[in-house]
Amino acid sequence: MKRNIFLAFLLFWMGLFTASAHTVEEHARIPAHGFAVMAEGGEFQPYTFSRHAVGDNEIQIEILYAGICHSDLHHVASDWGKEEYPLVPGHEIVGRVVKIGKNVTKFKVGDIAGVGCLVNACGECEFCLMGLEQYCPNRVLTYHDHDKYHDNEQTQGGYSDTLVVSQNFAIKVPENADIEKIAPLLCAGITTWSPIHYMNVKKGDKIGIAGFGGLGHMAVKYAVALGAEVTVFDITEAKREDAKRMGAVRYVNVTNPEELNGLDNSLNYVLSTVPAKYDPAMYMKMLKINGQMAIVGLPAIKNMPSISVLSFVIHGNRKVFGSQIGGIKETQEMLDYSVAHNLYPEVEVIKADAAAINEAYKKVQAGEVKFRYVIDMKTLKHAD
Amino acid sequence: MKRNIFLAFLLFWMGLFTASAHTVEEHARIPAHGFAVMAEGGEFQPYTFSRHAVGDNEIQIEILYAGICHSDLHHVASDWGKEEYPLVPGHEIVGRVVKIGKNVTKFKVGDIAGVGCLVNACGECEFCLMGLEQYCPNRVLTYHDHDKYHDNEQTQGGYSDTLVVSQNFAIKVPENADIEKIAPLLCAGITTWSPIHYMNVKKGDKIGIAGFGGLGHMAVKYAVALGAEVTVFDITEAKREDAKRMGAVRYVNVTNPEELNGLDNSLNYVLSTVPAKYDPAMYMKMLKINGQMAIVGLPAIKNMPSISVLSFVIHGNRKVFGSQIGGIKETQEMLDYSVAHNLYPEVEVIKADAAAINEAYKKVQAGEVKFRYVIDMKTLKHAD
Repeated sequence: MKRNIFLAFLLFWMGLFTASAHTVEEHARIPAHGFAVMAEGGEFQPYTFSRHAVGDNEIQIEILYAGICHSDLHHVASDWGKEEYPLVPGHEIVGRVVKIGKNVTKFKVGDIAGVGCLVNACGECEFCLMGLEQYCPNRVLTYHDHDKYHDNEQTQGGYSDTLVVSQNFAIKVPENADIEKIAPLLCAGITTWSPIHYMNVKKGDKIGIAGFGGLGHMAVKYAVALGAEVTVFDITEAKREDAKRMGAVRYVNVTNPEELNGLDNSLNYVLSTVPAKYDPAMYMKMLKINGQMAIVGLPAIKNMPSISVLSFVIHGNRKVFGSQIGGIKETQEMLDYSVAHNLYPEVEVIKADAAAINEAYKKVQAGEVKFRYVIDMKTLKHAD
Repeated sequence: MKRNIFLAFLLFWMGLFTASAHTVEEHARIPAHGFAVMAEGGEFQPYTFSRHAVGDNEIQIEILYAGICHSDLHHVASDWGKEEYPLVPGHEIVGRVVKIGKNVTKFKVGDIAGVGCLVNACGECEFCLMGLEQYCPNRVLTYHDHDKYHDNEQTQGGYSDTLVVSQNFAIKVPENADIEKIAPLLCAGITTWSPIHYMNVKKGDKIGIAGFGGLGHMAVKYAVALGAEVTVFDITEAKREDAKRMGAVRYVNVTNPEELNGLDNSLNYVLSTVPAKYDPAMYMKMLKINGQMAIVGLPAIKNMPSISVLSFVIHGNRKVFGSQIGGIKETQEMLDYSVAHNLYPEVEVIKADAAAINEAYKKVQAGEVKFRYVIDMKTLKHAD
């Protein structure tokens, strides 16, 4: 009897110990490897850090590809305000689910998931309830932010091998998708899709797409798919043929002023994706009465353009608005539609290597990428 | 026989002479008396000039009342670019028809007619065909313009005793109208009516009216009449009670920052009538998602505010647009509605006297008028 009692106690304590060990393991931070800039305007170098453990409503993904967005360059350079370093950019992410929290129902291990600019939000405010999580005052950005729901830790982005994210902020990627090209949809795709649908662009409408880069070329594809008549505006001859190939009816190199002749009062919509200095009023002028101009591109603070009240009154009854990425439900719709209609970004895949990323940044800065660099994170090599 | 031939010739020549004299009289310019500033920023003084003769599609009116609009002050001071002097302002005009051209069917002698900011336009362009004559590239402004349809003569405004205008640009004023209060409707009325209806403001909507002067107080009356919940923004305590009396639910003196607390993301619409330096982004911030801000007030060039592209993106999915007065058909609708619903401006009638006008200008500049000065042109005395 004594022996039985002893055994029972032994088993009880062993159980407790096991449970405790299990708990420690559950809450252990997850090692992550990737690329960071260590100071304002620096170059990338290999960087090892950690992610918080997978919570009950979270998933961990092994990152397969990460897109290089022009806004990553702005953050690296502290163009929009002083950033915190080391900084791991990347908010165009696709990966494979490797672990799920106990309450996760949306994903199972092995699924493909996409993550964009947001990893969390409050879920309760009027914006979240409208499906506009990007405007939630308690949203958590994928990087260059602090996570209010995890001890306010600094968030780090997708130029890394793994990420932990709320299941509600991960997008389901269809099995038949071209995975290599999915990542840019999570920012360039949704950021242009959202205002195009918000403005209700439809067959026969005339739309101008200003800035023909990562965002701009997705905007052209979406607008052409809707049957709109697309005019593309950029500052180079190098992309003229690409615009035509993607279905634009007109390409305007704005550095040749004569190409602007006849465009005043001719467009129903303009979508500006320009990330550098420019004159938004020039595009307002091209709008017809009741036309709308959406602004999604954001230059560096020192080059930030503005629109005078006088321009608004002169070009009266034309509306201007800005738009931030898009909500989660809308992002899922965009992704499903893009895959179903074969509307993918045109990507150049590079190795997960600091030198390759640094080289890519120079090309993006010079406007020489066609049209999006994607880092193949599967090629990452690290010592530990 | 010779005598008969002689008589016939005599009669023939007499006939020619009479016809010729008649023609001369028909095409003789019409003397006009009023008040002009003779140089940039000058004071008013009596001024005699002339109007072109009444054309086949034109009417001549004897001006009864002319409103003093804040934009008159801007023109007198060349705030929006160098003006031509002598300059007779006034684009809020009501008068009695004293002569009509042979093709005029819209008016008969004795009718009451209103004239606003426009006296003519091409009638054929897409803007004219849409009933948006204010955007016609060949429009003719009531003053500070040149009349393309009359030898490019300088146009002069309503601070005068008579005006000649195309019948298509004169508004019919109902017989039962309170004539003394009609003039300001032709600018302050239509300029606020038009964007309020363009935005489709309706019962229960929350609208902010920024700037509580001549335009602003009409905006409050129209929005209240539509059943909207109106918040008024201005920089003085002197008009707080007036806002409440006119039906506003809230008055915000923006010089007390604490009064702005709680207003972010609270309004469906904003209508800015502010004619001085201010920050439009402050009002954008108050808009709810899908909210709209209309800008009709225009400060001097040197104080012209602008909205940064960054503000648009931060306050995403809120639209901003400008609006110029309104079309002629819409102006007639506004006037008929205003009279039928007893929605008149609050006016201070002054004598047609240079000293009185100069004094009124000082009060308008100081924001001390409640709410519109109207010059009683019937009291004009002139030597010739």
